Amino acid sequence: MADERTEIASLGEFGLIDHVTKNIELQNASSIVGVGDDAAVIDHFGKQTVVTTDMLVEGVHFDLMYTPLKHLGYKSVVVNLSDIYAMNATPTQIVISLAFSNRFSLEAIDEFYEGVYTACEKYGVDVVGGDTTSSQKGFIISITAIGEVAPDKYVKRSTAKKGDLLCVSGDLGAAYVGLLFLEREKKIFIESPGVQPDLEGESYVIGRLLKPEARKDIIEFFAQKEILPTSMIDVSDGLSSEILHICKQSDLGCVLYEEKIPVAEDMKKAAFKFEIDPTACALSGGEDYELLFTIPQSEYEKLVLNEEISVIGYMTEAESGVTIITKGGSKHPLTAQGWNHMKQN
Amino acid sequence: MADERTEIASLGEFGLIDHVTKNIELQNASSIVGVGDDAAVIDHFGKQTVVTTDMLVEGVHFDLMYTPLKHLGYKSVVVNLSDIYAMNATPTQIVISLAFSNRFSLEAIDEFYEGVYTACEKYGVDVVGGDTTSSQKGFIISITAIGEVAPDKYVKRSTAKKGDLLCVSGDLGAAYVGLLFLEREKKIFIESPGVQPDLEGESYVIGRLLKPEARKDIIEFFAQKEILPTSMIDVSDGLSSEILHICKQSDLGCVLYEEKIPVAEDMKKAAFKFEIDPTACALSGGEDYELLFTIPQSEYEKLVLNEEISVIGYMTEAESGVTIITKGGSKHPLTAQGWNHMKQN
Repeated sequence: MADERTEIASLGEFGLIDHVTKNIELQNASSIVGVGDDAAVIDHFGKQTVVTTDMLVEGVHFDLMYTPLKHLGYKSVVVNLSDIYAMNATPTQIVISLAFSNRFSLEAIDEFYEGVYTACEKYGVDVVGGDTTSSQKGFIISITAIGEVAPDKYVKRSTAKKGDLLCVSGDLGAAYVGLLFLEREKKIFIESPGVQPDLEGESYVIGRLLKPEARKDIIEFFAQKEILPTSMIDVSDGLSSEILHICKQSDLGCVLYEEKIPVAEDMKKAAFKFEIDPTACALSGGEDYELLFTIPQSEYEKLVLNEEISVIGYMTEAESGVTIITKGGSKHPLTAQGWNHMKQN
Repeated sequence: MADERTEIASLGEFGLIDHVTKNIELQNASSIVGVGDDAAVIDHFGKQTVVTTDMLVEGVHFDLMYTPLKHLGYKSVVVNLSDIYAMNATPTQIVISLAFSNRFSLEAIDEFYEGVYTACEKYGVDVVGGDTTSSQKGFIISITAIGEVAPDKYVKRSTAKKGDLLCVSGDLGAAYVGLLFLEREKKIFIESPGVQPDLEGESYVIGRLLKPEARKDIIEFFAQKEILPTSMIDVSDGLSSEILHICKQSDLGCVLYEEKIPVAEDMKKAAFKFEIDPTACALSGGEDYELLFTIPQSEYEKLVLNEEISVIGYMTEAESGVTIITKGGSKHPLTAQGWNHMKQN
């Protein structure tokens, strides 16, 4: 199968669309009209609709030298769903547009869509539309995800309150270290094509990069425990950057404790191999797709037993600034790149 | 102003997003949360949501040598809105993703967005989200449009009935002839850069290509006259292709009368300059963004006085095939390229 190559041109545009959509089975009752018309029709009767979009460009957001197309399809969906969950909403549909040059065969496009459909099935999302076209160079993906939320249960970035606890799901920084490994092996491969990649023992960090998951479980936990965060954002650009977004948009400051930042043991070991600080990876690495949110202190009891959630700080008035207290006990202003102290060393 | 050049890099990603979204004023009550969060929130309470997406790639869908960026921004929005109208729905929001290389300055991006916002204002649509990123080559636009429709008032392609009248709005083929002129002048310019373009008198066909409009007025007319088409599609790939979609998806045939196909006088004259048949332009040209639809014969009286609508044929059982009756009175099968008779000449 991997050896076959079918030229896209042999199908034509409509043939290609039929081919990649022929196995779609709609999962949501709200998906009334799916692929195959001018537009899809969705019934969100009694709910509010949530919409987000992301564009991924080869050579900018991903490198096909070490990104299998199936993983890329999966990840392209997940990064959009993560934005829907970050609104405390449930994703229900996506539309997907692809542009690719004639270096890609039908088999390659099929692999990509296999990843797309695997993610859609896992998260209960329907593909209800899209567009497929050619590009002059490379592979470009644009996905728009649509979700639903009960009226006024959506959670914005701008509504954190002073005194709220700052919390994050999962662990941070691993995807960035995974990227360092893959970039290192790519460089070695380019210089010495015979050398086999040495990624032994790094499956956790590489998996976090190539096959991230969106935190559906956290949103379900909130619903079950009747927790409504006061603000929320997904961690795509690194913890620092996201904390700064919440602080700026909520007009608040915050105190972040370095020792509370959740990092996985596998990530720590991997970071040390590159002689970099695991905290720096968590603060500025990005692509974690965890949820960063704030809750009133009164809600603390509801989530203290959830091992997937860490309380990492608290919100202050804006005048106090956005600060990190290091393991050594010193206090520094937090910047999008981490904190100034790091840069000086 | 046109001489200034501000590098995008001087703003950074978030600075650029702030810059291009700073003047947005939401027009629809349903736009609850717009740009600036993980996702937008839309309240379509009591209505159904309609979604469509289109990707436009430089060098594939447009040529910046003769497409002003402002027109490109306008057209990018319009082609998506056209798909929403083709569902008998009203567009309310768009999300827009852009990728562009560093050959584009901030002033160029501003021009593009000026066109986007002009179209949004004209059609009463809000920009509620998007993504801006770099590309390795060229300018890539992905827009997703969202609309609303009263429950079960949406119109699909697959529900035409035998005996229905086949109708189309406006006139067809002009955008294609406009493209022929611009391609001709581009070729002359490349060969002899000193020669001024000769587009005198061709403003109609060139305007139809560079600044198309979506048929909001037709959808409003339907609502006012209480007409519910039995099927509808927008004409983006040429009349033949769209008729074949309706026939195939409705499992019907049809009879199309060549003499009834609406073409503008300016387009006819322009087509003759290229020694091509105006009917061929209408059938296979594309980019007209008119609406092709079917209505029961009993509804004929309601639209006969609307000069923007032409009845061009009628639907038959599938076994009769999809046919065109030429001005000369002969009958031919219709293909996506026009009809076979044309190819033989």
